[in-house]
Amino acid sequence: MSLQIPQPTAVLEAANRIAGIANQTPVHTSRTLNQQTGHQIFLKCENFQRVGAFKFRGAYNAVSQLSKAQKEAGVVTHSSGNHAQGLALAAKLLGVKATIVMPDNAPAIKKAATAGYGATIITCPAIEREAVCAQQIEKHGYTLIHPYDNPNIIAGAGTAALELLQEVGPLDLLFAPVGGAGLLSGTALAAAAVQPTCRVIGVEPAIANDAQQSWQRGEIVRLTAVPNTLADGLRTRFVGAHNLPILRQYVSDMLTVTEDEIVTTLRFLWARLKLVVEPSAAVALAPVFTGKIGEPGQRIGVILSGGNVDVAELAPLFAD
Amino acid sequence: MSLQIPQPTAVLEAANRIAGIANQTPVHTSRTLNQQTGHQIFLKCENFQRVGAFKFRGAYNAVSQLSKAQKEAGVVTHSSGNHAQGLALAAKLLGVKATIVMPDNAPAIKKAATAGYGATIITCPAIEREAVCAQQIEKHGYTLIHPYDNPNIIAGAGTAALELLQEVGPLDLLFAPVGGAGLLSGTALAAAAVQPTCRVIGVEPAIANDAQQSWQRGEIVRLTAVPNTLADGLRTRFVGAHNLPILRQYVSDMLTVTEDEIVTTLRFLWARLKLVVEPSAAVALAPVFTGKIGEPGQRIGVILSGGNVDVAELAPLFAD
Repeated sequence: MSLQIPQPTAVLEAANRIAGIANQTPVHTSRTLNQQTGHQIFLKCENFQRVGAFKFRGAYNAVSQLSKAQKEAGVVTHSSGNHAQGLALAAKLLGVKATIVMPDNAPAIKKAATAGYGATIITCPAIEREAVCAQQIEKHGYTLIHPYDNPNIIAGAGTAALELLQEVGPLDLLFAPVGGAGLLSGTALAAAAVQPTCRVIGVEPAIANDAQQSWQRGEIVRLTAVPNTLADGLRTRFVGAHNLPILRQYVSDMLTVTEDEIVTTLRFLWARLKLVVEPSAAVALAPVFTGKIGEPGQRIGVILSGGNVDVAELAPLFAD
Repeated sequence: MSLQIPQPTAVLEAANRIAGIANQTPVHTSRTLNQQTGHQIFLKCENFQRVGAFKFRGAYNAVSQLSKAQKEAGVVTHSSGNHAQGLALAAKLLGVKATIVMPDNAPAIKKAATAGYGATIITCPAIEREAVCAQQIEKHGYTLIHPYDNPNIIAGAGTAALELLQEVGPLDLLFAPVGGAGLLSGTALAAAAVQPTCRVIGVEPAIANDAQQSWQRGEIVRLTAVPNTLADGLRTRFVGAHNLPILRQYVSDMLTVTEDEIVTTLRFLWARLKLVVEPSAAVALAPVFTGKIGEPGQRIGVILSGGNVDVAELAPLFAD
């Protein structure tokens, strides 16, 4: 089966599809951040997106393009995180039945949030979730909406960067966090569509650097275990087949950050910028915030991917 | 000494003075909040103001209007909270020396933040702070910039509501939290200046309802002890002499909320709206959020006063 790799223009088409339905999220700036780093930084606040993360963009773009028959049959995915909620809401808005396969040990709050958008939740041992998904597809004719390895998910995710570039003008550098690389792929396509001179850079936790390795080697590198990074949205073990060619063609660099750097950046985002963001969002800002981007005076965009966190669970990170 | 009570137009003048220096903070809306309450709600996000709270507006408005001699001598205030930081930054920007009297037991983080803006910190037992302030004035000729009982502080505080009304258009109701009533006084003047039909409503913690009593009786009621409300910005024991006449003339109602209602609203603002706000900000939204505003379909503005919190300290409120 040949892959359909989306072109940069696919992001423009996705933007038309989600207009008025997804939030055009605000761009925040900070004098303190600019002074500390020596750069001019624009933060695209996807924590203020519907369902609290960029994932809604891709989900809506994907579900809205299904055929009438596919919509009538319904959609399915496996996710315990933001994609689950994004797909559930997108499906609900489009009148499509959604089934979400979650691991038994997914937090009750995430199950409740997803069910709250009208999706059917099926739980199973984590290791069986792909098999359970496949069973559901075979039994009910559902369409799988993969969290990142899907052209329409990628193009939809890119609309955040597109809005940012359209709002603030040309950027020297544009950072996005990398899990399965749906967001980074879309971000790279968006820049290619409207400002090809902008260097797009992916950032991963150092202990979850499969995408960096894959990008360097030109083949998908799989981590043997789920990496235990604080950035729970980036614990994916490997990027998708649709994602790697885009990263190779359009991404200028792949960086990693330590867990300590993630915490330092997260604290700043909460305490000083007053933004409830998830650790994965802090990952994207961390190289800039911790002074890893040497040449001063750059115009830098950062996609803050989302804000779905358990405050009580993260709080110890904020103790002095 | 006769009091100079500011007129509504003072807020318009203050807005010109702070233009380009204070942030024009964003207004957030939420489909979920509107659906839950049946109203259309506009949240003025002063947590994104400089120093993390609306206090910078009044401080800058006040210090900028001092005479040359007063500026050369310097300013002083007693505060352990947002006013301390607001005054410190305003003074720094205007090249004025600031001295802040804080209680011995003020959190180290607040002392550090205030000192970080270049102010001199003097600590003393809480009960002596007014006396120490007076000594500083006598010794150095400093001008006292009172946290709320000051016409220019009041007019500056009102610019948040002015921006809100100018941005979103006419409102039926406009809510502000009440401590010393600087913010509420300014908010009421702002509405009187540009939309007198807007009903301005103050909200206090029920265990700190001195302003409600003062507004009802027409005389300043003083609490005998500092109220132990979660809303640490609203623990003031009495409103100012400049504030009460404004409340009596321009404020339509004064409501109270329980500590539980503050927590419920705070959790929603953090977890769903992704806003790091302080408990005092949640106080203003609480009557609307908890369904105390009966008649549906109102256009409602809420001033979210600030976002300076100790995340680790508040975290237990977010445990299930």
